[in-house]
Amino acid sequence: MDTIIAASRNQHKIVEIEAITKKFGMTIISRDEAGIPKVEIEEDGETFEENSFKKADEIRKMCGKTTIADDSGLMVDYLGGAPGVYSARFAGEDCNDTKNNEKLISLLEGVPYKERRAKFVSVITMVFPDGTSLVARGECEGHIIDTPVGEHGFGYDPLFVPDGFQRTFAQLLPEEKNQISHRAKALAALERLLEERNS
Amino acid sequence: MDTIIAASRNQHKIVEIEAITKKFGMTIISRDEAGIPKVEIEEDGETFEENSFKKADEIRKMCGKTTIADDSGLMVDYLGGAPGVYSARFAGEDCNDTKNNEKLISLLEGVPYKERRAKFVSVITMVFPDGTSLVARGECEGHIIDTPVGEHGFGYDPLFVPDGFQRTFAQLLPEEKNQISHRAKALAALERLLEERNS
Repeated sequence: MDTIIAASRNQHKIVEIEAITKKFGMTIISRDEAGIPKVEIEEDGETFEENSFKKADEIRKMCGKTTIADDSGLMVDYLGGAPGVYSARFAGEDCNDTKNNEKLISLLEGVPYKERRAKFVSVITMVFPDGTSLVARGECEGHIIDTPVGEHGFGYDPLFVPDGFQRTFAQLLPEEKNQISHRAKALAALERLLEERNS
Repeated sequence: MDTIIAASRNQHKIVEIEAITKKFGMTIISRDEAGIPKVEIEEDGETFEENSFKKADEIRKMCGKTTIADDSGLMVDYLGGAPGVYSARFAGEDCNDTKNNEKLISLLEGVPYKERRAKFVSVITMVFPDGTSLVARGECEGHIIDTPVGEHGFGYDPLFVPDGFQRTFAQLLPEEKNQISHRAKALAALERLLEERNS
């Protein structure tokens, strides 16, 4: 397989995608490395699937190569699935991970442990030069704690304790997170789809 | 046009749909009146479109007649679009309008007026005996106040002040709400689609 261009400009995501996909022999390069113009792709879909496809497909149209995109987010049961597709901009337009985490903490203030269930969702789309695509979804369930802990990862990782662990995603080593994360599961599912497609 | 069977069992919705559609000469009867078995249709979609189609199509499969379904909800900007498709069960499985309203009030406690933007969304799907369908969406923008006011309507109506009004949906008379509501807009859009289809 040729080099695949990652539609994301989020360095954290690219590092995770590369770490996982290199095990299946894929070579990923970022859109910046590929010299793709730095246009903003508006993530205006209502689902991870819509946004993921849109990102991969717009970059594919610009370069004619195989592209891969991840759209992901945190869905909190108590908040009816929010922040979901709005995860990255939950605290408003000029927000950042810290502000998003603070907002989530404040919305869940006083909510008891058993009502703090949440899942991370990642939808990975690969679009081929001819416009056909593969879509894979991965989910990782857990709960949200009330104080951020840990220095690894990004986004809501310091607040999310995956099931079966006593540590947050941000306390796991990258190689631990990359075995159980929503993104790892989506990429593993994508690998199976690729095998089927090539067989 | 023959009689159309409403997939909903929510009496409030049926009354609103009937009041609006009778203006275009449609006759709506409820699924209970049509003798459709009282099975629960799981609203497990991620979008109003998915749930609306699923409800109308499952009833159509049971009776072979033209059916209509509404899936609707409140999307609050501050909550990243929540409760959205979870509006009716926001406060949990055994919830009701009062509990849902209380939960929303509590999540928005202390949030300033200009960050309390919200919209009601209704997606109406009509499925014909052959399985073809028409889908129409209507939205009504406004803001969420911090104390329920008014006795009309249902759901989050007592907390929602539509733009251009100083009263909540629950303070408007049904004939006023039925001119500006998300459901009225969706049904008006459906009427246009029906005219195109029949012309």
